[in-house]
Amino acid sequence: MVSRVAVLGGGVIGLSVAWRVASSGCAVTVFDDECRTAGSWVAGGMLAPVTESWPGEEELLELGSRSLALWPEFARELGDVGLRTDGTLAVALDSADVGVLDVLAEHLRGLGRETDRLTGRELRALEPGLGPRVRGGLSVPGDLALDNRALLSALRKACAAAGVAFEPRRATPSTVDADVVVIAAGAWSGDLHPALKPVIRPVKGEILRLAPRRGSLPPPTRTVRAHVEGRPVYLVPKEDGLVVGATQYEAGFDPAVTVGGVRDLLRDAEVVLPGIAEYELVESAAGFRAGSPDNAPVIGWLEPGVLAATGHHRNGLLLAPITAEMVLELLRGGGPR
Amino acid sequence: MVSRVAVLGGGVIGLSVAWRVASSGCAVTVFDDECRTAGSWVAGGMLAPVTESWPGEEELLELGSRSLALWPEFARELGDVGLRTDGTLAVALDSADVGVLDVLAEHLRGLGRETDRLTGRELRALEPGLGPRVRGGLSVPGDLALDNRALLSALRKACAAAGVAFEPRRATPSTVDADVVVIAAGAWSGDLHPALKPVIRPVKGEILRLAPRRGSLPPPTRTVRAHVEGRPVYLVPKEDGLVVGATQYEAGFDPAVTVGGVRDLLRDAEVVLPGIAEYELVESAAGFRAGSPDNAPVIGWLEPGVLAATGHHRNGLLLAPITAEMVLELLRGGGPR
Repeated sequence: MVSRVAVLGGGVIGLSVAWRVASSGCAVTVFDDECRTAGSWVAGGMLAPVTESWPGEEELLELGSRSLALWPEFARELGDVGLRTDGTLAVALDSADVGVLDVLAEHLRGLGRETDRLTGRELRALEPGLGPRVRGGLSVPGDLALDNRALLSALRKACAAAGVAFEPRRATPSTVDADVVVIAAGAWSGDLHPALKPVIRPVKGEILRLAPRRGSLPPPTRTVRAHVEGRPVYLVPKEDGLVVGATQYEAGFDPAVTVGGVRDLLRDAEVVLPGIAEYELVESAAGFRAGSPDNAPVIGWLEPGVLAATGHHRNGLLLAPITAEMVLELLRGGGPR
Repeated sequence: MVSRVAVLGGGVIGLSVAWRVASSGCAVTVFDDECRTAGSWVAGGMLAPVTESWPGEEELLELGSRSLALWPEFARELGDVGLRTDGTLAVALDSADVGVLDVLAEHLRGLGRETDRLTGRELRALEPGLGPRVRGGLSVPGDLALDNRALLSALRKACAAAGVAFEPRRATPSTVDADVVVIAAGAWSGDLHPALKPVIRPVKGEILRLAPRRGSLPPPTRTVRAHVEGRPVYLVPKEDGLVVGATQYEAGFDPAVTVGGVRDLLRDAEVVLPGIAEYELVESAAGFRAGSPDNAPVIGWLEPGVLAATGHHRNGLLLAPITAEMVLELLRGGGPR
């Protein structure tokens, strides 16, 4: 086993890797500038391999399901990360949406996962805030959700307790002194190694954070997902409100929160939960997911002494525990095969 | 003339009064906590007595017109406040809006002020960014606009140069040591004197600040105003973008930027200027106008040693120069008549 490990990136992947690797006895340093456009800072907080699943991505569902199974224990060790176990409602507004849910339900059934079809009336019995245009949906048990910012904070504490050192700056593999460098810089990983350059790209997304005001309806208990006029929208309840996400653009590293993005998120979220019109708009934020060609992460040796743990796209939070385990295994293996 | 004057409030009214009074030879102290929900911080920056005019408010138009005439010299003395002299386009989207503009044009004609009626085509020749739903409008010459935040900054500098002292806290008439106290605390003035309590109320408003991004259409040259489904919206160009305003609520001092408010402003502004969908949403802010029963300011002695300069509602920026002149006159008079 190596002794000194440098982790480039302090998002959910970098911190999870650093925590687990430090706990195994290595001396770990995390290089990170706490960038506010990191994917795990600007995120919804869903751990949703099932609802995110789609025909053709069965391997990703398998990996996600394995990671999901690790989450309860991972969260228990971290302490308060706002874990929610109430599952997801995927709702439909028109016949096209119903068709999308039919495909999803059929796909999941083929994988041995049952979902419940619910009418609009049944959905509103579960979540009274759902709007009149919601005409049906799927109840998807098993998905989790958490507060991504509470998670980052808990991970930093766990890292510190495990002896991880933090350097508050960005670094490259050639500028750090370590036996092994782990590239976990999310959307920025492409700049850190030539092998990642053609593989990892930033996928911009925008989210909103809302909070109920006095007299407004309470947020839903479950995560609610929908397609509105073809645009996906999700509403993830938090202790202090709701995260609405997320737009998706291939726009490079443009950090602007756009008028069109906020307009779409507000409009689509209001169709699903009309009561949020009275909520406070606490924050609008843009961030960058680490996109990869097949939407699956890149976890493995790039060359002797350099490991990649990146490309998690929409699944960074979900895949953090299994990524940390895989990196630990690779380090125990000692080098590229 | 009195020698020591305390000004309670450092918005556009308090600072204008302090500047002019200090320049006349008094020792002036401004008490202000630079609150970010002050009306003059969260403002559009229009100096628009004509376009804001409405039957029944002829005296306010008269006062506004007199103050507008003072503005070019006032601005020249202050330096860079982003003054714009291109006037206002008041545009109509449907026959109800056309009716509103007819009332305004007729009203202004009766007061001897001519406006130009323009077709949609003529409007788009002036401002190519106007959307296809804009079907007609009025060109209102004479209105000015400026950057309210540049103005506040310039006023603070001018005050400092004139010897004004600043105390970075809120104060009340009974807690300051001065010959005369001027209450210029905007929406908060009602708490500072029993005579103002029943008169001044906060009128909440929300604005958005937008900025063009690379490749997006440039902002309009003129201020553009419209009613969209009965809601008034204005778009005021700035050097670095556009201010969109403003919602209006009787909601006390609730400082929340609401989902419904932002949604309405974005939707209505996009109808007027569709190209802003590509703009950056730089800021959403809520602030409080100092409402009064007749929408006119309260400027005068409340008791010996206590003067009011408040209640400017939507017209604080416009009326700042004339308010400062009136306060100076009252101080020269020496006390309540």
